Amino acid sequence: MSDAAQQLAEASVRGMYAGDRASQALGMQVGEVTPGHAQVAMIVRPDMANGHGICHGGLIFALADSAFAFACNSHGGVVVAAGATIDFLRPARVGDRLVALAVERSRGRRTGVYDVTVQDPLGQVVAIFRGRSHRRDA
Amino acid sequence: MSDAAQQLAEASVRGMYAGDRASQALGMQVGEVTPGHAQVAMIVRPDMANGHGICHGGLIFALADSAFAFACNSHGGVVVAAGATIDFLRPARVGDRLVALAVERSRGRRTGVYDVTVQDPLGQVVAIFRGRSHRRDA
Amino acid sequence: MSDAAQQLAEASVRGMYAGDRASQALGMQVGEVTPGHAQVAMIVRPDMANGHGICHGGLIFALADSAFAFACNSHGGVVVAAGATIDFLRPARVGDRLVALAVERSRGRRTGVYDVTVQDPLGQVVAIFRGRSHRRDA
Amino acid sequence: MSDAAQQLAEASVRGMYAGDRASQALGMQVGEVTPGHAQVAMIVRPDMANGHGICHGGLIFALADSAFAFACNSHGGVVVAAGATIDFLRPARVGDRLVALAVERSRGRRTGVYDVTVQDPLGQVVAIFRGRSHRRDA
Repeated sequence: MSDAAQQLAEASVRGMYAGDRASQALGMQVGEVTPGHAQVAMIVRPDMANGHGICHGGLIFALADSAFAFACNSHGGVVVAAGATIDFLRPARVGDRLVALAVERSRGRRTGVYDVTVQDPLGQVVAIFRGRSHRRDA
Repeated sequence: MSDAAQQLAEASVRGMYAGDRASQALGMQVGEVTPGHAQVAMIVRPDMANGHGICHGGLIFALADSAFAFACNSHGGVVVAAGATIDFLRPARVGDRLVALAVERSRGRRTGVYDVTVQDPLGQVVAIFRGRSHRRDA
Repeated sequence: MSDAAQQLAEASVRGMYAGDRASQALGMQVGEVTPGHAQVAMIVRPDMANGHGICHGGLIFALADSAFAFACNSHGGVVVAAGATIDFLRPARVGDRLVALAVERSRGRRTGVYDVTVQDPLGQVVAIFRGRSHRRDA
Repeated sequence: MSDAAQQLAEASVRGMYAGDRASQALGMQVGEVTPGHAQVAMIVRPDMANGHGICHGGLIFALADSAFAFACNSHGGVVVAAGATIDFLRPARVGDRLVALAVERSRGRRTGVYDVTVQDPLGQVVAIFRGRSHRRDA
């Protein structure tokens, strides 16, 4: 990839994250970003546990969704999530540092598909997520 | 439905919510619960907005997921989310009181399917969610 | 709805079905069509059974997908399926006449969401399907 | 993997395919099979085209679904599809030989998740599919 594409990716994600109060409030930290890819981490806090004593699925989804949003906006423009599917494969526990890695599977003029894998500190897959993006300005 | 089923639904959801720190921290309020159904509301706070200035999709998902979890645990037992699909139909804004209504579509011995509709204060549909449950103790 | 909308729906679906060799080869029959809705029936033939002796899930999906395609093209224009989710709730058997009913849940300028329910002759739900459409000419 | 696991995979899939009239009628051919993986090919026939003149999405789904079914039954036992999600990325044309490759993403005692990629003769991805399996005999 070109330096320009990489710089655009980093600048786009930095700008999005700066305005993304939700991701900040959930303690998400953006890791490596390249065009079409983004890595985001989050530590499961006690106030993220559900009635079964494990991380609320909605917050695992939120982590994956942020990684997806950063990946699909890494090319610039205004791209929003149209929908997503998630499969929960194993529970995440309070204190776990979860890492979501979003990878672009397809990108057309208006729509895209991204796969996100959420892993726990042992590298075990907690959830797999597939997001569909839609470009607003196309 | 029988009085016993209704009492079990209310007691199960009350117990789950009491231990569900995530739903509490997100300000969710449980409304009407009957066997297989649950209504949950949440006001979109400023710290729930994403980089586009609208409610983070992960938190809309979290609201729907809580309604789903309460509905599928309303029969007693230990039922967890195996996965879900969400379609985002229109944005939700800071200050909006969103209401999620979960309805049982199917319930077998071990698995179930639930549909959740999330509406904004004007009754417009913000998102539709379909959750798949899995019974742990069956 | 207006008479013009109803006539457009019927003409669009009639035209699509006339060119849809796949739906014809699978023996699908189009029932009632209104703007945003379509009903399609199919009898499970012996050559539609899978290795478990029940209707191959792909053919149940094909029936639902045709109903979805007719519903989302009932407004005219060129609308294609972007993707779909299906949940198989109970098996369908050889000889069963399955009926798929597609209902519009949302329709924007470019994208739409449709729910399809597939029922067996006893009115039992065999599968539920949610399709996402994309308008090519918008 | 052990020789025994490989032999079980091949025998299971051979047995399933022998009884799978639907996959046979659609001209599907089973390629390489290993525990948790299966490759299946299908040529798009004229009677598989839809009203837009391209391969009916239901038949692309059917191909992916067969690959998924073979992969999740490759360990022996009776495993059925609980549901699936598909994203259609580009059209397939009459005459195209499509190849579906199913890969196991997760396998628990009762449930599993499989990813299937469907490619056209140029190696372009036509569709991505994610299937959820359920073990009947567990």
